[in-house]
Amino acid sequence: MNLSKYLSKKQQLIELALETVLPAEVIKPSLLHKAMRYSVLSGGKRLRPILTLAAAECIGIRPETVINPALAIELLHTYTLIHDDLPCMDNDDTRRGKPTSHKVFGEANAILAGDALQALAFQLASQSPIEQARVVYELAVAAGSQGVVGGQVADIAASGTLSQHELEYIHQHKTADLFCAAIRMGAIAAGADKVQLQNLTIYGANLGRAFQIIDDILDDEDPDDKSCSCIGLYGIDGAKDIASILTNNAVEAIITFGETAEMLESIAYEMLERTF
Amino acid sequence: MNLSKYLSKKQQLIELALETVLPAEVIKPSLLHKAMRYSVLSGGKRLRPILTLAAAECIGIRPETVINPALAIELLHTYTLIHDDLPCMDNDDTRRGKPTSHKVFGEANAILAGDALQALAFQLASQSPIEQARVVYELAVAAGSQGVVGGQVADIAASGTLSQHELEYIHQHKTADLFCAAIRMGAIAAGADKVQLQNLTIYGANLGRAFQIIDDILDDEDPDDKSCSCIGLYGIDGAKDIASILTNNAVEAIITFGETAEMLESIAYEMLERTF
Repeated sequence: MNLSKYLSKKQQLIELALETVLPAEVIKPSLLHKAMRYSVLSGGKRLRPILTLAAAECIGIRPETVINPALAIELLHTYTLIHDDLPCMDNDDTRRGKPTSHKVFGEANAILAGDALQALAFQLASQSPIEQARVVYELAVAAGSQGVVGGQVADIAASGTLSQHELEYIHQHKTADLFCAAIRMGAIAAGADKVQLQNLTIYGANLGRAFQIIDDILDDEDPDDKSCSCIGLYGIDGAKDIASILTNNAVEAIITFGETAEMLESIAYEMLERTF
Repeated sequence: MNLSKYLSKKQQLIELALETVLPAEVIKPSLLHKAMRYSVLSGGKRLRPILTLAAAECIGIRPETVINPALAIELLHTYTLIHDDLPCMDNDDTRRGKPTSHKVFGEANAILAGDALQALAFQLASQSPIEQARVVYELAVAAGSQGVVGGQVADIAASGTLSQHELEYIHQHKTADLFCAAIRMGAIAAGADKVQLQNLTIYGANLGRAFQIIDDILDDEDPDDKSCSCIGLYGIDGAKDIASILTNNAVEAIITFGETAEMLESIAYEMLERTF
């Protein structure tokens, strides 16, 4: 299948499912559910949940089977964006061209919408088709103090020029951990064996790091961006080379799957070439 | 066994286990782990996790078996306290006689410590002895937009005199839901059958509501307390009568368990008489 058709089909599946699992605005407390829906249903690329679905496909399982862990990853990701945007953190007024949650609903409701989305993410992870405990555990570790939250704390504490070590810590935990969890949750919930899980983990870990480096390259053209970037360390060309090596590592790790890994391969190359 | 000896033995067990599951300060990011430990290890009564342990005992299972779900409830409870204390919510400077998390670590780190504690709570829930998916699901629903977070949103939005309906919504979700989940998680993780779970749920639901009403009675003596209270609706004597009826309902629901329910009974009566 053509990649862009594949991505848009999967996006549609995810949008519809998110729409369904998020409590309707008419359900009390209306304002909270409005805030949750506002941030989740604001048209992201849905890259992480697509990876979860594609990981299941890679081992021969229908992607719909792992829709709940896929949604869990997206809800978790959305909650981190809401909290990262808060005035006491990155203090961002807009995201994806729309006012951020705290701008629309106030700080307290934005924090609480994030909190509730994290809880809903774990509710959906517990509703995986099989291996629920392992799927929840994966998400909890990736989301926790030595995962996404750990990366955000280090990012906030960072000032001045970062060492390569500090920068890699932030990138690994703030971004790559959740990519890797997206892949692993899909694999585990689809019944991957040990070797399959190992290969998909290598794919996910390399893809996550590549994604962050490409983000830095794209952000480098934005003089207002204050976030930690690897460009100061490697330069644009050096960063592009590293992203390319990581992408190749990712693709090589899943070569043994053959045809079913086709979409994961295409996603990795597409990500490397992206300009958005 | 004598109740106060029972409670202090269980508190010791919980303190030691919390100390063990919380990442040490030497583990990176040190500041985050310091903040998590600061709030969790600050000497609460550990009432909720004790209820989880006692629910297992009630159906003849060693309480240590359900220590992970018990810790999950306490970590979840602690995260909600950190977020509730924030300047944009209740704006509290002290808790249990110590400066609140955001006063010590700053707002961003307080929010993130809460976020990481929620993730750790779900990690521990996924490490229940049996029925992990059901235990995680219970916690997620109690913690979510129609549980604790829903109650907090309604509490923040509340102004002026509340109707009985509004007040009950806040109390039910902000407080009683987590008490009920504490009991149910212990019962489920201990392998309760349907009838046992039903009886323990009635106990937990009534106990949770009684706890909140007694809290209101005690807080009524504090002129600085701005939180929603049922005293305006029922008066002190009316509130005491309701708490007494709820306590009796709780105890009646577990009478069929016989001797193993002794501690749950004593806890309910002790709570009714408490002056702290």
